[in-house]
Amino acid sequence: MTRAELVEQIRLKKSFLCIGLDPDLDKMPNAVMNAEDPIFEFNKAIIDATHDLCVAYKPNTAFYEAKGLSGMQSLVKTIDYLNENYPNHFTIADAKRGDIGNTSRMYAKAFLTEWAFDSITVAPYMGSDSVSPFLTEGPGKWAIVLALTSNHGASDFQKKSTGNQLLFEEVLNTSSSWGTPENMMFVVGATQADALREVRALVPDHFLLVPGVGAQGGSLEEVAENGCNDDVGLLVNSSRGILYASNGADFAEKAREEAKKLALSMAKYC
Amino acid sequence: MTRAELVEQIRLKKSFLCIGLDPDLDKMPNAVMNAEDPIFEFNKAIIDATHDLCVAYKPNTAFYEAKGLSGMQSLVKTIDYLNENYPNHFTIADAKRGDIGNTSRMYAKAFLTEWAFDSITVAPYMGSDSVSPFLTEGPGKWAIVLALTSNHGASDFQKKSTGNQLLFEEVLNTSSSWGTPENMMFVVGATQADALREVRALVPDHFLLVPGVGAQGGSLEEVAENGCNDDVGLLVNSSRGILYASNGADFAEKAREEAKKLALSMAKYC
Repeated sequence: MTRAELVEQIRLKKSFLCIGLDPDLDKMPNAVMNAEDPIFEFNKAIIDATHDLCVAYKPNTAFYEAKGLSGMQSLVKTIDYLNENYPNHFTIADAKRGDIGNTSRMYAKAFLTEWAFDSITVAPYMGSDSVSPFLTEGPGKWAIVLALTSNHGASDFQKKSTGNQLLFEEVLNTSSSWGTPENMMFVVGATQADALREVRALVPDHFLLVPGVGAQGGSLEEVAENGCNDDVGLLVNSSRGILYASNGADFAEKAREEAKKLALSMAKYC
Repeated sequence: MTRAELVEQIRLKKSFLCIGLDPDLDKMPNAVMNAEDPIFEFNKAIIDATHDLCVAYKPNTAFYEAKGLSGMQSLVKTIDYLNENYPNHFTIADAKRGDIGNTSRMYAKAFLTEWAFDSITVAPYMGSDSVSPFLTEGPGKWAIVLALTSNHGASDFQKKSTGNQLLFEEVLNTSSSWGTPENMMFVVGATQADALREVRALVPDHFLLVPGVGAQGGSLEEVAENGCNDDVGLLVNSSRGILYASNGADFAEKAREEAKKLALSMAKYC
């Protein structure tokens, strides 16, 4: 999905909500546990109940890999279901990959071509040749580079001073030159809303993927106030707050209610 | 596998060779291409031909994920084959994972418990809570943290000054306090042999996983001279140089010859 198409969807739906599809068997409702593939059934129900309220879905690969091959099968069924039924949604493989050039090329092929995600999250530590292969899989394919993450460990290295700036600023400055606002986004945690103004100063045109609203404690309003650009320029993700709003038979309905609350708060920024 | 067991294997075999199992269908010999699962057949042949010359095997997950679900199945068959037939080999999932705490826990569960690897490579950018979950999967389970990698992009961020030291030194200093030499190793590329002395000064007791000998141009002798400690403390990896020594019917035999050359050069350091 191209940048123009994504912006169009955001304007149309008046939402920049991304829903994280992180299925945790310990938290999933009994209602789906007897299905042949509980993870896929759960995702399908969540997607069907929320698709008109969000513009993106973001499965985190860890939750699927943790279930071994059958989990990976559920991931593939989920992305296939999205691509067949909701082709206007932006899809993100939250995989945080990154390796030497010939290996990153393999990951790019896996996620962006074989599994046909629109985008993949990428760790910047290994530098240019670890990120570049994700930028050459064709138009509408994206690398989403970690800049400033939402977890407390973010301060261990990302906020270290490298002279005139902090490491995450160095990452924004340097890696933004490897791609364009048409094929690269950055991850900035919602718990780091203060830093969003500095991020915007460094990358005014790029989309930002912002996790950490909800269970992790970030504020949607602060994120929107500090992070929006002329094209909105944000995808704000919520996972647990939506997925596990109820673990009863009404789980999809309750997920929809939570998604709706977030989407309504987003409307005025779109 | 515990540190003591690994050191014992190194002394016994007089080798600290790790073989990277990175199966690339474009380079694999015709001899295996008609098998039901060419990747597994290739790995099995390589393992059977080299097991007495090396102490570790390191499949890079990208090469399996690039083949979709069937590739992941080949990976699972490979680790199962190793664990059943060669339980004295140290196994490394070269996956370079790392995410917020609850998500890293999922990856730890996937690779160290579900798939029963001894260890997994981990990216440090997200800090302590992204690495710690890999250190609590029980004795003999390891996190191998990226410090200074072998690719040219390593200089983009890893060699940035953060005041008194470079970022990779900061990573070594800080993250070595999260674990012990019994559950944590570091990746230091063979192409960075000059830096190995500084690395050793910072982490004298930890094992180092050293990729980049062979196709990437690193020198085994330099690595050993600068990187050995009293317990050898090195796992030197070669992938392409061994796997694709020949693409004829003699591929396993030629792979053995290449592995033997490396193992022989290692003997005097063991």
